Amino acid sequence: MPLNAQQLAEVADLRAEKRPTLREVSPALEDILYQPLPILDHGFIRVVDYMGTDAAIVQAARVSYGKGTKKTQEDAGLIRYLLRHRHTTPFEMCEIKFHIKLPIFVARQWIRHRTANVNEYSGRYSIMDREFYIPAPEQLACQSVTNRQGRGDVLEGAEAARVLQLLRDDANQVYNNYESMLNESEDGTVIDEGKKGLARELARMNLSLNYYTQWYWKVDLHNLMHFLKLRADPHAQYEIRVYAEAMLDILKAWVPTTHQAFMDYRMGAAEISAKGLEVIRRKLRGETVEREESGLTKREWDELFALIG
Amino acid sequence: MPLNAQQLAEVADLRAEKRPTLREVSPALEDILYQPLPILDHGFIRVVDYMGTDAAIVQAARVSYGKGTKKTQEDAGLIRYLLRHRHTTPFEMCEIKFHIKLPIFVARQWIRHRTANVNEYSGRYSIMDREFYIPAPEQLACQSVTNRQGRGDVLEGAEAARVLQLLRDDANQVYNNYESMLNESEDGTVIDEGKKGLARELARMNLSLNYYTQWYWKVDLHNLMHFLKLRADPHAQYEIRVYAEAMLDILKAWVPTTHQAFMDYRMGAAEISAKGLEVIRRKLRGETVEREESGLTKREWDELFALIG
Amino acid sequence: MPLNAQQLAEVADLRAEKRPTLREVSPALEDILYQPLPILDHGFIRVVDYMGTDAAIVQAARVSYGKGTKKTQEDAGLIRYLLRHRHTTPFEMCEIKFHIKLPIFVARQWIRHRTANVNEYSGRYSIMDREFYIPAPEQLACQSVTNRQGRGDVLEGAEAARVLQLLRDDANQVYNNYESMLNESEDGTVIDEGKKGLARELARMNLSLNYYTQWYWKVDLHNLMHFLKLRADPHAQYEIRVYAEAMLDILKAWVPTTHQAFMDYRMGAAEISAKGLEVIRRKLRGETVEREESGLTKREWDELFALIG
Amino acid sequence: MPLNAQQLAEVADLRAEKRPTLREVSPALEDILYQPLPILDHGFIRVVDYMGTDAAIVQAARVSYGKGTKKTQEDAGLIRYLLRHRHTTPFEMCEIKFHIKLPIFVARQWIRHRTANVNEYSGRYSIMDREFYIPAPEQLACQSVTNRQGRGDVLEGAEAARVLQLLRDDANQVYNNYESMLNESEDGTVIDEGKKGLARELARMNLSLNYYTQWYWKVDLHNLMHFLKLRADPHAQYEIRVYAEAMLDILKAWVPTTHQAFMDYRMGAAEISAKGLEVIRRKLRGETVEREESGLTKREWDELFALIG
Repeated sequence: MPLNAQQLAEVADLRAEKRPTLREVSPALEDILYQPLPILDHGFIRVVDYMGTDAAIVQAARVSYGKGTKKTQEDAGLIRYLLRHRHTTPFEMCEIKFHIKLPIFVARQWIRHRTANVNEYSGRYSIMDREFYIPAPEQLACQSVTNRQGRGDVLEGAEAARVLQLLRDDANQVYNNYESMLNESEDGTVIDEGKKGLARELARMNLSLNYYTQWYWKVDLHNLMHFLKLRADPHAQYEIRVYAEAMLDILKAWVPTTHQAFMDYRMGAAEISAKGLEVIRRKLRGETVEREESGLTKREWDELFALIG
Repeated sequence: MPLNAQQLAEVADLRAEKRPTLREVSPALEDILYQPLPILDHGFIRVVDYMGTDAAIVQAARVSYGKGTKKTQEDAGLIRYLLRHRHTTPFEMCEIKFHIKLPIFVARQWIRHRTANVNEYSGRYSIMDREFYIPAPEQLACQSVTNRQGRGDVLEGAEAARVLQLLRDDANQVYNNYESMLNESEDGTVIDEGKKGLARELARMNLSLNYYTQWYWKVDLHNLMHFLKLRADPHAQYEIRVYAEAMLDILKAWVPTTHQAFMDYRMGAAEISAKGLEVIRRKLRGETVEREESGLTKREWDELFALIG
Repeated sequence: MPLNAQQLAEVADLRAEKRPTLREVSPALEDILYQPLPILDHGFIRVVDYMGTDAAIVQAARVSYGKGTKKTQEDAGLIRYLLRHRHTTPFEMCEIKFHIKLPIFVARQWIRHRTANVNEYSGRYSIMDREFYIPAPEQLACQSVTNRQGRGDVLEGAEAARVLQLLRDDANQVYNNYESMLNESEDGTVIDEGKKGLARELARMNLSLNYYTQWYWKVDLHNLMHFLKLRADPHAQYEIRVYAEAMLDILKAWVPTTHQAFMDYRMGAAEISAKGLEVIRRKLRGETVEREESGLTKREWDELFALIG
Repeated sequence: MPLNAQQLAEVADLRAEKRPTLREVSPALEDILYQPLPILDHGFIRVVDYMGTDAAIVQAARVSYGKGTKKTQEDAGLIRYLLRHRHTTPFEMCEIKFHIKLPIFVARQWIRHRTANVNEYSGRYSIMDREFYIPAPEQLACQSVTNRQGRGDVLEGAEAARVLQLLRDDANQVYNNYESMLNESEDGTVIDEGKKGLARELARMNLSLNYYTQWYWKVDLHNLMHFLKLRADPHAQYEIRVYAEAMLDILKAWVPTTHQAFMDYRMGAAEISAKGLEVIRRKLRGETVEREESGLTKREWDELFALIG
């Protein structure tokens, strides 16, 4: 369970009372507001605030005085047109804020998305939790032999068991020594009154990258979709992809029309090069096309046919 | 009146019905939501959406699971501490969206603030309104003789009257010819069926920079305060300052604790250089300080004493 | 000629003497450094500084200690791979700075690209030049009937002549009155010693949007390519496209390998939706595909077949 | 020695030959170009490219056709004026690129500065080096009792020795197990042909936050100064401050006039609140001012007098 009893009580408290607003409301997002969706072994993601719905995109695109919306179908058509033709600014008019608990090595990938706002839990100021990520056995993959930054087969048997043991033991040991150097235990109790304890900003360096951190992360809808395009992609590392996949569900609850357009035009789409398009045109005309005359390298040719069969 | 009857009806419609939400609500901002505040002769500013309140700043700074707020005074102390010490990221957790009507020459200054989201009314796509800015007589200032980018005394008598007449006549004439080139009047009626009409994206170039445009502008609280610090400053051009001043009132309604801290630590504050601080220290010790030995230029010295009397 | 004699002398002076550097040098860019390339009737674009070459991309992608480059072909392969798979950060390691003279209505489109650095000539501080844009006769297009933000046929005969006359007359008149209100002529001479003259920051509002402004504009290679993808596109307005096209030539001189990859994978490329890809797959397998069963709208279907013939 | 023999040879190779350029050159920066300045026990910082000098700031501020520079003193006056009055855009016209080796926990603070370009060494793709940070004894501080995110006294004797031993042992152990899980040693040699080895993107999570990473980091001069203002400040964590201090020296070599203005108006400066300014004014007039009537809290009052004596 990613939240303890007190934290769950705080969430329940936040969900106890509705207040009236004149703003656009997303009922499906209200249903899950503040509630943690568990990710990995100790992580979670939860929506803590949002601004706008599909209607806000239409309203901004039309720079309207009122709702700016017309018939549902017209609105959907506009949203799909905007997304298809990369008119991105209306999507920036919606905003969402998450509270996320995630391993530090995932946080290091995540933070590379710069167009977002972040407040992270501070290991200079506070004691870190004793929570670290251990992959599930089916995620314990070996290095890919074909892709230098990917995974291959899953480790099995003794090798798998040994890896899990090493990860667990080292994580526990570095935390034990973290407490020992701090001269404080996880709950802040002083261990030995006769010692000073190392500064938190220093002691934290002993923790390993699978330790969990947490942050508030706020992003506009356009940049969220950019994040999801990259991180929900099958080539993204599994440990960040599971967060992105949960966010796809959140996207669907929040802005269903945009979500559908995003799935059609971004997630499942592919960019085909000028030379690739020419190959397709020729083949559709019934011509035989050889790789050598196409201008494509072997790799590009293979990528193209992996795509169009 | 900046909005016509239909637009006012659309605003009234938006304000007709409240919906329940679990999000933080700013009651004082709800009171003015969607309603245009008139600025200059034809402009306005109105809030069309917002995310967060003072509480969201506290919540993010504490990366909290629940409300994150403690006693009102503790929360205010934290907000003031954050602002005083430029811990800016918690202020990025609040967001506000405006619909603004403003002269193009003001829009050209405004857009230089890059960390914001914008959707502008398109003169490629639509016909521009026949609305242009004419300064009120008390704003008809001559060029400052001491500040190359400022205003001096107000023009009077015949010179003032002539300037107003020229501005008005030229603005009307360029719009008449805009319609004529378009072969369409403001409401879209074709003028002469025998003509084709110049493309909108070209005809608009004949309009002058005092014509009004409008946009949706969305910004986070940190960047809004940065905008206000620069644009509500007495050295800002009057025509953008009036928008900033109206936004200060909106800030006060939205996040009153942050507004108070902003007025104390930013708007009324001054940055004093290392050498300036040394002058103050010496004078407070009762020493006589000469400009020549202070390391300050004449200009810096004068700026310092304009500030500290 | 966009530069006057004095300005040309200043450019010649900048080009007079080479200095030794240990940095990467782009010989083809050095050949045109500082020299204005004329655009439209009074505009220009010129490169005033740059950082990095194709080699810098390779070096950054490899986080190398030395040159980081291997065989030319391997380097080209890496650059093409990075661009194809949207690994964008290595392209951000190159930077270029332009001095550009452009009509204000073009500048208003241009400035929407936010990830760049800008210093614009100030009409608050200085008198604007009497230079305005008048379209060449072959650019005097009517409004498109099929695309609400595009151009159709070219105006001809009396209508064309009248439009050109109106544009020219209005532009001259607003400048005459600009000088008159300033009580200064273009070169700064006071017109009537008995008058005060309107402040520059106010008088400039009488100028029309076809007046030229100028700025220094600095951007990294990734964001430059994003700009070019949008603005060298046939759907971009002609008056900004001509600047983008000149910048494509500059790109070719500066980073030839990246330029080639950009032309292959971006400029001539197209993004095809999930459903569009499925249509292609089925047709390549020899199936007959009807629009109705494809899940594509009429508009999407037409866009797809306009692309793949 | 932060670089090995091969790396030093690569640096020497880069420094072997100068090439002619028409761009502005900073001779003092050329002197140190590519050369690593050692930081901490295994880190370094080195300049790998730059664009512009003090002259570029003047040139951009004047939107000039030529050098844009006048007398040295006038140029310095302009730069100082721009910095004093926060006219920041001309400083964005200079750019610098660093290659930096730094502990991961420092990198995590550093990356929060978003307006910069980064390419980091990839632990998904490559094996990390066996290099970790161990504080020098005089940096082994205990937690501050007055400042929750700072350091207090230095640990001594047995406690200090034990902390150093724990840090060293844990760092070595997690690396040993990293190699073991990878089934590869640091140089890429396979350890046991009978095993598959864990994927690099997973194994790296066992490393601790004091392990070194490295990146190319590129930033404009305005954002660099913002970074230095925060990170060369005495309240910044020591381990990032030493990098910032080295960059202050680089700043001085690169843009000496800007460096001097920065030291005067930013590094040594302080922002004083509206109420604080009023206290100073009254005291300079010879009045007695009590804290209670000043409107300042105890904390603010103490901060003010710590500043002005």
